[in-house]
Amino acid sequence: MELHAADQYLVAPAEAGLLEVYERLSGTGLFPPFPPVELPGGVGGLVARGGFAQAFFFPAEVLGLTFKTPKGRVVRAGGVVVKNVQGYDLVRPFVGSFGLLGEALEVVFRLRPGRASAFLRRPFSGESPALSPAPRFLFALEEGGAGWLYAYHFGHEKEVARFQEAFGGEEAGPMDLRPLFPQGMGVGEGPLKDLRFSWADGGRAPEPPEAFRKLAEAL
Amino acid sequence: MELHAADQYLVAPAEAGLLEVYERLSGTGLFPPFPPVELPGGVGGLVARGGFAQAFFFPAEVLGLTFKTPKGRVVRAGGVVVKNVQGYDLVRPFVGSFGLLGEALEVVFRLRPGRASAFLRRPFSGESPALSPAPRFLFALEEGGAGWLYAYHFGHEKEVARFQEAFGGEEAGPMDLRPLFPQGMGVGEGPLKDLRFSWADGGRAPEPPEAFRKLAEAL
Repeated sequence: MELHAADQYLVAPAEAGLLEVYERLSGTGLFPPFPPVELPGGVGGLVARGGFAQAFFFPAEVLGLTFKTPKGRVVRAGGVVVKNVQGYDLVRPFVGSFGLLGEALEVVFRLRPGRASAFLRRPFSGESPALSPAPRFLFALEEGGAGWLYAYHFGHEKEVARFQEAFGGEEAGPMDLRPLFPQGMGVGEGPLKDLRFSWADGGRAPEPPEAFRKLAEAL
Repeated sequence: MELHAADQYLVAPAEAGLLEVYERLSGTGLFPPFPPVELPGGVGGLVARGGFAQAFFFPAEVLGLTFKTPKGRVVRAGGVVVKNVQGYDLVRPFVGSFGLLGEALEVVFRLRPGRASAFLRRPFSGESPALSPAPRFLFALEEGGAGWLYAYHFGHEKEVARFQEAFGGEEAGPMDLRPLFPQGMGVGEGPLKDLRFSWADGGRAPEPPEAFRKLAEAL
């Protein structure tokens, strides 16, 4: 992994684990656009599925990527500059395309600064609460018959402290959720839910629109 | 134009003018993702060129669109929901594709709230300054031999007041820049610059990457 701390981005091979990224960033005061939760397929899998648990527009946090198309061509898309995305954007359609546009080889993530972070959980009743301040990441997990709502937040100390007070609950630590998905992580009724989907073992990709399928065939 | 003030979005036909959008939003406390400057091609032209003068990620402010592909197919992409973009994103590649993916018919813009706004200009030396607070929109214009830096900002009263104090200069009003581009607005050496490009009359589209061209042919 290639960390560019001053420019706040990280270049990660697709096979890097999400917790490996956290380890690499430890002590830098910089955070990636996902919570400290290991998921199938590492960074590449995460990007193919369009992120996990985020309460913001995830595709914009992927500054660039290299991917191999279904026909085997290698495409470099995007770059490392945040502000001036110049158009002809192949990064955004790739993110969340569930492999339809190919397989990621390398991903450039935007990093965001934070002086503090907190990972909390509390019992989950089934209703997504309105939280203020809203955490950057939120997901619900069924574990042994009980439902838990997990929230991860980072930012200024005061903001994080206000979040902790508002959310309550107990501290959580980095998690490995890969054992939940021995047959792959897809969309369907399952024990894990975020703001976009319910995730199931062996679940499927959402049905792509006709026009998107045509795009995929062209690459 | 269809304004959904409570849900903070606007549905505009591609031919709507940018200043018409400002008129429609007048008094609502909501703002579109472009400054009060009329440009060639209205909303459709703006989206094809990837926005104007923004200091943020413009494509994410286009929640959805309907467009006609080069082969004449009509495609609906995206929606009106901000948070849970689910993947298979055809909106983001369209934005800034300079017509390569087709022609917009209707655009859904995210609106952002602001209690105050300010449009200012000051003499421009040629260097883009570091401004704090940074305005949402910034562009430079040569007029009669003189260079001016224009900045437009909206938000909380205090934030806008701090911007006014930091930026200085004089008040500007809504502008019609269409007369600068009788042969169309494209990229090239010209009198108008924003954070992405210099804009020229009869200017061209930037060269698309090979893979993007393939995409365009497929649609």
